[in-house]
Amino acid sequence: MQSYPSKLLEQAVNELAKLPGIGRKTALRMALHLLKRNVQEVESLGTAIIKMRNDIIYCRECRNISDQEVCVICASPKRDHALVCVVEDIRDVMAIENTGQFNGVYHVLGGIISPIEGIGPKDLHIDGLISRAATGTIGEIILALPTTIEGDTTNFYLYRKLTAFNLQVTTIARGVSVGDELEHTDEVTLGRSILNRTPYESGLKQK
Amino acid sequence: MQSYPSKLLEQAVNELAKLPGIGRKTALRMALHLLKRNVQEVESLGTAIIKMRNDIIYCRECRNISDQEVCVICASPKRDHALVCVVEDIRDVMAIENTGQFNGVYHVLGGIISPIEGIGPKDLHIDGLISRAATGTIGEIILALPTTIEGDTTNFYLYRKLTAFNLQVTTIARGVSVGDELEHTDEVTLGRSILNRTPYESGLKQK
Repeated sequence: MQSYPSKLLEQAVNELAKLPGIGRKTALRMALHLLKRNVQEVESLGTAIIKMRNDIIYCRECRNISDQEVCVICASPKRDHALVCVVEDIRDVMAIENTGQFNGVYHVLGGIISPIEGIGPKDLHIDGLISRAATGTIGEIILALPTTIEGDTTNFYLYRKLTAFNLQVTTIARGVSVGDELEHTDEVTLGRSILNRTPYESGLKQK
Repeated sequence: MQSYPSKLLEQAVNELAKLPGIGRKTALRMALHLLKRNVQEVESLGTAIIKMRNDIIYCRECRNISDQEVCVICASPKRDHALVCVVEDIRDVMAIENTGQFNGVYHVLGGIISPIEGIGPKDLHIDGLISRAATGTIGEIILALPTTIEGDTTNFYLYRKLTAFNLQVTTIARGVSVGDELEHTDEVTLGRSILNRTPYESGLKQK
C-alpha cells in the first residue's frame, strides 16, 4: 500500500480507481494530470458526470438513454415501428445505428440473464418488451444478444415469452466476418456459417 | 464520428476522453458504468476530483503535494534536511519513499526542461531550489531526474546554477537493474555500469 502525500489526492485516486479497467497506478496518473489542468476544466469534468447521472432519462418506450421522455429513434415517424431489435446495452444501439442498415426501433434490456452475476429476468426490461408485444403492432422482433451462454439463455427465455403473440421472432445472422479468412475462423462460427448458408443472389442484391 | 443518444452522455464522454490514455471508446464504457452506479457514488467521484483540484496545497519548502503549508516530510525533525533529492514529479517522491532507503528531504521541480514541449527553466520550481541552496544549510543535492535528453539538459542547467554554492551535487547511480540479465541490458546502461563500477565491499555492506 502506497502512502500518499495528501488525503485529498488519496481520496481522488480511490474514486478514480473504481472506474472499470483503471488500476491505482493509472488513477494516480489521472489525478496528477487533473492537478495540472485548470480549475474550470476539472470542474467541467466533475459536473458533467454528476449531471449525466442525475439528469439522464431512459426512453419510456425502448429504455434507450435519452434527453427526452421518448428517444429520437422511437419518436421518429421515418422508422419502422413494427420491427423491434432487442439488444443488451445502449452501446449495441450505437453500433447498429452506425451500420446504417436498420430502419426499425430498439428495445434495450439493460443486461442479459446471468445466474452467476445474480441477474435474473426481473432485473431486465423484459416486462416492457412484453407490453410492447401485447399491443399487437409489432410484426417482427430481432434478437441481437451476444453469442454466449447468457445470451442464449436470454434468447430462449424471450422466445418462450414472445410465442404467445402473433409476431415473428428472428436472430441476427452468425457467420464468418467480412474480410476474415476461413482458416482463422473458429469452428463453431464456421460450422454455423455452413448450416445457415444463404442463396448467392441475396448477397448480390445487398451490394 | 458516433452519434450519442443523449447530449448529457456525449458531454460526459467528451470530458472523460480528455483524461490521459483514455480514448472515446473507453470513455463511453466509463460513462455507461457510471450510469449503473448509484447517485451518491458518482457524486463522490465528481466532488473528490473537484475538491482535490481546488483545495490541494503545494509544500512551500519542496513543492510536494500536501494538505498543510509544509509537507509531512519537510516538517519531520527525523529527516536529514541537509540532504535534498531533486525530482521531476511527486510520483518520484512516492517511488523513492517506497524504497525506504532515503532519509533526506525532496525538491519537486514539477517537470523538466523540454524545448519541444515549450517548458523552460521559468516554468519549473528552480528558483525555490536556488533559494534553499542559498541558505547554506544544504550539504548535498542529489539529482534524480530521468535519463533522457530533457533530464540531462535539466541536470546540466541545475548543476551550473548550483556550483555557485558550497555544496556537493550528485546524481543517482545508473546501471544494470537488480535481477536483470546482462545480455538483455541495453548497451548504454551496461557501458555506464562498467564505467561507474563500485567496490565489491560497498555492495556487501548494503545487504
